[in-house]
Amino acid sequence: MNFSVFLPTNVIVGRGCVRARGAELQPLGSHALIVTGKSSRANGALADLCAALSKNQQRYTVFDRVTPNPTLACVREGIALCKAVGADFVVGVGGGSPMDAAKAIAILAVETRTDGEVFAGNYGARALPMAHIPTTAGTGSEVTPYAILTNDFARTKTSITSPALFPKLAFLDGAYCDDLPPRITKNTAMDAFSHAAESMLKQVSSPASEMCAKESLRILYPLLKALERPAKEARDALLWASCLAGMAIAQTGTTFVHGMGYFLTYDYGVDHGRANGLLLGETLRLFEENGVPAVGEICAACGASVGEICATLSDLCGARETVPREKCAEYAARAMQTKNIRACKFAPTEEDILRIFTKSLIGEEA
Amino acid sequence: MNFSVFLPTNVIVGRGCVRARGAELQPLGSHALIVTGKSSRANGALADLCAALSKNQQRYTVFDRVTPNPTLACVREGIALCKAVGADFVVGVGGGSPMDAAKAIAILAVETRTDGEVFAGNYGARALPMAHIPTTAGTGSEVTPYAILTNDFARTKTSITSPALFPKLAFLDGAYCDDLPPRITKNTAMDAFSHAAESMLKQVSSPASEMCAKESLRILYPLLKALERPAKEARDALLWASCLAGMAIAQTGTTFVHGMGYFLTYDYGVDHGRANGLLLGETLRLFEENGVPAVGEICAACGASVGEICATLSDLCGARETVPREKCAEYAARAMQTKNIRACKFAPTEEDILRIFTKSLIGEEA
Repeated sequence: MNFSVFLPTNVIVGRGCVRARGAELQPLGSHALIVTGKSSRANGALADLCAALSKNQQRYTVFDRVTPNPTLACVREGIALCKAVGADFVVGVGGGSPMDAAKAIAILAVETRTDGEVFAGNYGARALPMAHIPTTAGTGSEVTPYAILTNDFARTKTSITSPALFPKLAFLDGAYCDDLPPRITKNTAMDAFSHAAESMLKQVSSPASEMCAKESLRILYPLLKALERPAKEARDALLWASCLAGMAIAQTGTTFVHGMGYFLTYDYGVDHGRANGLLLGETLRLFEENGVPAVGEICAACGASVGEICATLSDLCGARETVPREKCAEYAARAMQTKNIRACKFAPTEEDILRIFTKSLIGEEA
Repeated sequence: MNFSVFLPTNVIVGRGCVRARGAELQPLGSHALIVTGKSSRANGALADLCAALSKNQQRYTVFDRVTPNPTLACVREGIALCKAVGADFVVGVGGGSPMDAAKAIAILAVETRTDGEVFAGNYGARALPMAHIPTTAGTGSEVTPYAILTNDFARTKTSITSPALFPKLAFLDGAYCDDLPPRITKNTAMDAFSHAAESMLKQVSSPASEMCAKESLRILYPLLKALERPAKEARDALLWASCLAGMAIAQTGTTFVHGMGYFLTYDYGVDHGRANGLLLGETLRLFEENGVPAVGEICAACGASVGEICATLSDLCGARETVPREKCAEYAARAMQTKNIRACKFAPTEEDILRIFTKSLIGEEA
């Protein structure tokens, strides 16, 4: 036994929790920069947050120009607004993109870096205090120390990591997910499922991370088969399971499934969760073929074999994107250079990675 | 679903972790008050801590006059020393008593209260920052917001509760437990087991607290049968399981088992963990008889029936203390007035409580 557990976010769960427990926002500061996309107006999250802040007599400014897979330009715009209005804390509201943008704004607002330095690591211990309100059940970003941004230098998405990126507060209200369309529900659920499974495949996986990951898999897997129109209870369970998967990767990081998927997102605009869902099945097969016991633990938590898990993910993905074979070869070579290829319980060769790409995307051996 | 999870302590686990990860103490302050009992010299914890602090160029003062079931007088003495030397953070090293004394010192050093006000609640958000190093596997105090002290006004033990009492850091090194005598190993293991089981019996028990509690029970129960001379792996597992049980009660609090046991500790000097072990079995029977489903979940996690759990605890307790029947009656009446009689999944009558006392201590019906 040799591990650590650090999950400092105060996670508040329940329908109506933003209004009921909004006083918890009080200690964060006097003026909030609310970082969000377009959907938080429709799902009610933004209205609940603004009501809570007003009740606390806290001021707020809304920055709602976050687009999927946020760029550094978007983050810079948020930082400029944050400084112009004198905001002293940040609230991220939305799916992974607004939350990741909010996290990048919170840390880069206090630690000035050029675009070329943003992904160079070694961040200090400071960031503006943050609260997060996820409105999809997938990213788990509300409890992780990561912010993932589009990295045009490397033509992929890249993470910033710092303990300063742990939000102080997270509000999980399943009601904000009730009206999500089936495609988003499916993609984000695959993201959460992939987080939990990938966490189990990392060398640093620990008794603490595995407790969170297995509980997440146990809740998620049966729900994956009924995502067309989930009942309220299922929405709540999906949101909690995605948070648990976030707690797992907060301790372990992700695997090359994420590293590989980022290429598909950058070049083909494949939704992030869907990219993970496309690649996870063959990755599990690779680990299984190479005798990694964690695969058995993943299967036990799901109550399913690798074959059954692959079929479930395949159903959720539906028709595949067309990615040429030569692109797969290029990605395989580049994947070998990414951060999260390292420290997995099985070290893949470039051929292994190429085989995952081709079997997943073209349906054939490399 | 309606709950929250707040477990902000950075928990570092592994043999040698205090020396290997001692740099984590650096941000806590410049001068540590080390609060400990006598055994931390023999088990090596104090030497490891002092070495880590010296390496960090942090000063320290040792307050080693903590006795079991710390009194307010002991806490006052620690506060006086803390102020005299100008300590700006606190490290608790030992079993529950030094850790609870350290927590009380850390909060009362910044919030002055008369003895009569100490247990009146409503503490502010401030305390001196703390690290904790448990040297028994029982209390879980290293991850809870509670400090339990002897309360001479009420002739029992009483808790102080405040989020400010969450330690910043906890180091869990099973080596400090290797040479514990069987009696202490057994009593502390019963304490941890009782925390996990009691947490499941509270109304506020949640998906998060139950995850921690069940994992703790799953690890602990098989180990309860082999506590005479545990192997190193078992020592490590006991320490982690007691931490998990602490995480569970940090979210839910304890039940009347604790409230009842404190009387036995105050009047008869019964070890705290042993007091819980004496009373838990009959308490589980009461909840089972009254159809509380959580008992089934406790049994499933243990892989044992209530009868088997009772027998295991009874073996661990051995010969009972002699407590007169009229004392049991007095305790039953007083127990009805304690904090943790409230909000359990079954609300006991005074007769129920009396029956638990007499069956547990005298072996007969009331």
